[in-house]
Amino acid sequence: MSKIKVGVAGYGVIGQRLADGVARQGDMELVGVADLAPTLSIRALKEKGMPYDLYLVDGADKSQFDAVGIPVSGTFEELIDKVDIMLDSSPGGVGAKNKELYVKHNKKAIFQGGEKNSVADVFFHGYANYEKGIGQNYLKLTSCNTTGLIRSVDCLDRAYGIEKVAITIIRRVADPGDYHRGLTNALQMDKAPSHQAVDLMTIMPHIEATGILVHTPVTHGHIITVVAKGKQKITKQMALDAFLTHDRIRVVTIDEGFKGNASFFRYARDLGNPRGDMYEIGLWADSIVESGDDIMYAINIPQESVTIPETMDGIRAACNMETDRLKAVAETNKYLGLGKWK
Amino acid sequence: MSKIKVGVAGYGVIGQRLADGVARQGDMELVGVADLAPTLSIRALKEKGMPYDLYLVDGADKSQFDAVGIPVSGTFEELIDKVDIMLDSSPGGVGAKNKELYVKHNKKAIFQGGEKNSVADVFFHGYANYEKGIGQNYLKLTSCNTTGLIRSVDCLDRAYGIEKVAITIIRRVADPGDYHRGLTNALQMDKAPSHQAVDLMTIMPHIEATGILVHTPVTHGHIITVVAKGKQKITKQMALDAFLTHDRIRVVTIDEGFKGNASFFRYARDLGNPRGDMYEIGLWADSIVESGDDIMYAINIPQESVTIPETMDGIRAACNMETDRLKAVAETNKYLGLGKWK
Amino acid sequence: MSKIKVGVAGYGVIGQRLADGVARQGDMELVGVADLAPTLSIRALKEKGMPYDLYLVDGADKSQFDAVGIPVSGTFEELIDKVDIMLDSSPGGVGAKNKELYVKHNKKAIFQGGEKNSVADVFFHGYANYEKGIGQNYLKLTSCNTTGLIRSVDCLDRAYGIEKVAITIIRRVADPGDYHRGLTNALQMDKAPSHQAVDLMTIMPHIEATGILVHTPVTHGHIITVVAKGKQKITKQMALDAFLTHDRIRVVTIDEGFKGNASFFRYARDLGNPRGDMYEIGLWADSIVESGDDIMYAINIPQESVTIPETMDGIRAACNMETDRLKAVAETNKYLGLGKWK
Amino acid sequence: MSKIKVGVAGYGVIGQRLADGVARQGDMELVGVADLAPTLSIRALKEKGMPYDLYLVDGADKSQFDAVGIPVSGTFEELIDKVDIMLDSSPGGVGAKNKELYVKHNKKAIFQGGEKNSVADVFFHGYANYEKGIGQNYLKLTSCNTTGLIRSVDCLDRAYGIEKVAITIIRRVADPGDYHRGLTNALQMDKAPSHQAVDLMTIMPHIEATGILVHTPVTHGHIITVVAKGKQKITKQMALDAFLTHDRIRVVTIDEGFKGNASFFRYARDLGNPRGDMYEIGLWADSIVESGDDIMYAINIPQESVTIPETMDGIRAACNMETDRLKAVAETNKYLGLGKWK
Repeated sequence: MSKIKVGVAGYGVIGQRLADGVARQGDMELVGVADLAPTLSIRALKEKGMPYDLYLVDGADKSQFDAVGIPVSGTFEELIDKVDIMLDSSPGGVGAKNKELYVKHNKKAIFQGGEKNSVADVFFHGYANYEKGIGQNYLKLTSCNTTGLIRSVDCLDRAYGIEKVAITIIRRVADPGDYHRGLTNALQMDKAPSHQAVDLMTIMPHIEATGILVHTPVTHGHIITVVAKGKQKITKQMALDAFLTHDRIRVVTIDEGFKGNASFFRYARDLGNPRGDMYEIGLWADSIVESGDDIMYAINIPQESVTIPETMDGIRAACNMETDRLKAVAETNKYLGLGKWK
Repeated sequence: MSKIKVGVAGYGVIGQRLADGVARQGDMELVGVADLAPTLSIRALKEKGMPYDLYLVDGADKSQFDAVGIPVSGTFEELIDKVDIMLDSSPGGVGAKNKELYVKHNKKAIFQGGEKNSVADVFFHGYANYEKGIGQNYLKLTSCNTTGLIRSVDCLDRAYGIEKVAITIIRRVADPGDYHRGLTNALQMDKAPSHQAVDLMTIMPHIEATGILVHTPVTHGHIITVVAKGKQKITKQMALDAFLTHDRIRVVTIDEGFKGNASFFRYARDLGNPRGDMYEIGLWADSIVESGDDIMYAINIPQESVTIPETMDGIRAACNMETDRLKAVAETNKYLGLGKWK
Repeated sequence: MSKIKVGVAGYGVIGQRLADGVARQGDMELVGVADLAPTLSIRALKEKGMPYDLYLVDGADKSQFDAVGIPVSGTFEELIDKVDIMLDSSPGGVGAKNKELYVKHNKKAIFQGGEKNSVADVFFHGYANYEKGIGQNYLKLTSCNTTGLIRSVDCLDRAYGIEKVAITIIRRVADPGDYHRGLTNALQMDKAPSHQAVDLMTIMPHIEATGILVHTPVTHGHIITVVAKGKQKITKQMALDAFLTHDRIRVVTIDEGFKGNASFFRYARDLGNPRGDMYEIGLWADSIVESGDDIMYAINIPQESVTIPETMDGIRAACNMETDRLKAVAETNKYLGLGKWK
Repeated sequence: MSKIKVGVAGYGVIGQRLADGVARQGDMELVGVADLAPTLSIRALKEKGMPYDLYLVDGADKSQFDAVGIPVSGTFEELIDKVDIMLDSSPGGVGAKNKELYVKHNKKAIFQGGEKNSVADVFFHGYANYEKGIGQNYLKLTSCNTTGLIRSVDCLDRAYGIEKVAITIIRRVADPGDYHRGLTNALQMDKAPSHQAVDLMTIMPHIEATGILVHTPVTHGHIITVVAKGKQKITKQMALDAFLTHDRIRVVTIDEGFKGNASFFRYARDLGNPRGDMYEIGLWADSIVESGDDIMYAINIPQESVTIPETMDGIRAACNMETDRLKAVAETNKYLGLGKWK
């Protein structure tokens, strides 16, 4: 079988990681990436010797790229023309505009969480509703928090049945290197319920969800606490047993040295993971407590990279590469090395 | 009736505020404060013209105070001798040692949250278990988070009955001006359950409580989210109605400008409150959401000053100044100006 | 002599402090303050019982104020009409527009550092060029960093003569309570030379100045290091002797407990200063070092309040209240309690 | 020629990077690393499949390693026995104790900046005093700030002659993932002069240096501003010309996107550098300004990795691998890929 050809629109925080993720899939081929300006990420691409071909979106000034010696392989539409599917990680709102080109060229696309749901046919999560994405033309991925949250809730739900969740999202407010947004010595409230709880209900309509989100001035990973009500009483041991089987959930303890979100970042750097990224969410075994009949636990969401595996799942679904949910996610996990730590 | 004479041991973040709080009570007299070294707070006391007399605890080097012209009124035991009751806000563990002196001089005392429960006869909260403190010799106050949390839970409990709470504490890691502790670009987990949940159960044994605590690198106020299960279904409106009656809960909205913990700090400064302190907890009306039969909401805890009112309540209880719970807290509220904003 | 009547445009971080500063001057009268919307600061004004009358600028929606019971005393032009001089602390750029009204009503005005120099006849600093402001209609104050910096450089210059300074500004990026700007785990460079060095040369044209500014994610006070070349060799002791005479420079040491910018904030809170403000800059005696023939030292700039004294000086100059520089600043210092700590 | 055999004591932030650095040198062989406990870094080593052999220092509890399946290759003394030279990055003070073992086994060693100078025969910097290290048994590297600072000062000194420098160090207070130290919303002063200025004078005794250090609550890179007095007037262009020739100085601009220390971290991650590390210091071309006859500029110091190249230089010197300074540093640069970006 020939490899599925993939392009990436927007070579920023997410786009770079999508490109790297595709390049690691043995059954996919990264055709190229598209962007607007010679950002630091594009300059780094050049310094690395252009492992990925670069195409310019409409509005880009090619002379800016020429001035610093960055080779350009063509236009955005030329890239679209060469691929089977586009991964769109443009800034919020731009994806909807790009969609017109994907439609014009009759190409599939997967949008990231910043776009409105209406941009896509299906709001998608690899583990929770893989089947809905099969053969579809336009998928939208859940956002980073929702992607990680659903991994854990879906895990418990498939094992024991979940009726209701109440979440508290302790959100990192910027990524490392961000200078266009930030918060200094302040916690910031969002109006409740948080969109992540609402999004969870869209993906998993049989679960009632609500939540409160608080922004915090850090850059390495969100932490979410979850209070979940099972269809049956879920004990701490039952929850732990389920989480330990999941290839995208890394169960850790504080005693091992995982003291918080920054420990995961350090650990991923020490592992030699490119960019110090981690695809899996972290789950603290020593955070799991029973609250009457409910179960409560805390997870860590590596916001820059957590959606990459589910996006690879999305390619598998949209392009009919695999119709079995578990086989599809296992294929992604194999290529990304997920679950190897166990 | 003559005024109750009060002394304060430890003129740090809490001790200063205890002294100020006592000085505002029309039925109490602040005799003096005791400390060990000419800290910035003691230097500020001197620059203000010594509104409070200073006594030196054992181990203090009087020559250090003489060198910078800070007048000393006597020894710690001399202070104890002059008072009816001591408020002990010494560093954790020192209070237990100080207790020997209080016992020797046959004086009552109230310890702050840093001491072990065993230091006291009663673990005390003005609103939740005032009656238990009446006439007792040694009380221990709940810590800042627990004090604020219990205000809100007790408020709902007395209105509608509460069975169970699951809390997420987003903890500020240091006070403004702290250089001896800190956290930089990291969230830090504590092992669950948090002590605040355990402490709540000690004060309110009819409620089941658990929780997870995450430290965040900010200095202005903890934020706690609470998922509470009522004996009956508590709607958002019912919760709001109850909270609005409470003189130590300030109900606000994000739209008014209360965007997070730092907004409360700014507002208290703008109010002209000494030190920019706030005695009341904040409660976001637009954080209240129903989670199935449970109710969820978020509160702000001004960690430096929140325990002051309940400590004043404790003096009223221990010294038999008032036997009626509601009259006692109302007396404290009157002198501290609490509830006036309504 | 009747009191000079003063109004304040823009009741934000600076405006509130200008109003408080004027209210403390025995020879001035605060007529009122003007603003656009019922911000937290305006709500706090109301909760305090409206110590200052409020006027609404053009574009304000009075119904918003009525809705929350904030009394309004009139329009911006009505305020202008009642005063001798306006202090304009509107957001950057708005002051230039307001000036048209001041001109129309034939009233003097002092603008804060956010406006362009062209808005005013004189770029003003109370200590460095008081004489230039005498009788002028429109003054512009130096910004917070420049105001504090010039205090220290002017102090050395008048004592020993200064030829050249090279400064490094370690800038706090936001004020406590700011949610509209921030920086998270990052230092940020500005292009050199910093505007503060350029501004210093405008005020003190006989000195050559340059500098580099780095933004840091903190809220309590800028720190500036200064490398100054004297007309003669200035020893550490000579510098210290000069600084100790200045009523707007508080000389401290690390050993006393002044460990950094946050220590000043804590100390001012402990002093009971309204809002925890400090008018004086801090200067670390143990930061003064000789660098060959140059002298190097570090100062702390309390950004929210440092320009208040020099603005009061400006009123004295513009309104011909005092023609002697030293008498003028002494008058301001007396009313603000500056130098009392010595 | 057989490869020089190298061991690393202390597999922490620096030790890991030393091991990686040695592994990249074509003329060196990494024999193994030694540590005390199964830290996160050691656990990551295991998860990576033990690319480096692990030895246990005295006091280590082997059963802790066995319990988590980490293979141990022997004792610390067994490691020492197998190598030609040890790189000691143990916690401060431990290196001095380890030295007894190095002496006992008659092996050379290079200590990191945390040790006292007396531990070594020579205080070493690859570019500034390479010749002094040739054939010596015990070298001590300059600390991260001093290493980077000297690169830039030595660069100017060799080109034009430098007489004097005054530095301001804006220090990152912790590394990513550190939970044992931190600072929250505060800048912290050190007493002047900073040790880095003193250390510079030890390495370059013909230059007079002083400086002030301020700690800031960030984790990605120190920024230093330097005011340097040349033997001749050094213009901005002359400084730039010199810096551009240096293989361990990366000259950048704000306009390219290098807005601050976090930009370098992001760029290094985007480059795919292991751990997102950068060996070179950054130098902002648009920070260079002339200050009278002096020159002023700002540099970025990637604290975790900046000393690795100079340590490799140190091995070359101590082990007599190369006697020519420029050939030695060029060899290190070649293996580490330094200067390739030009």
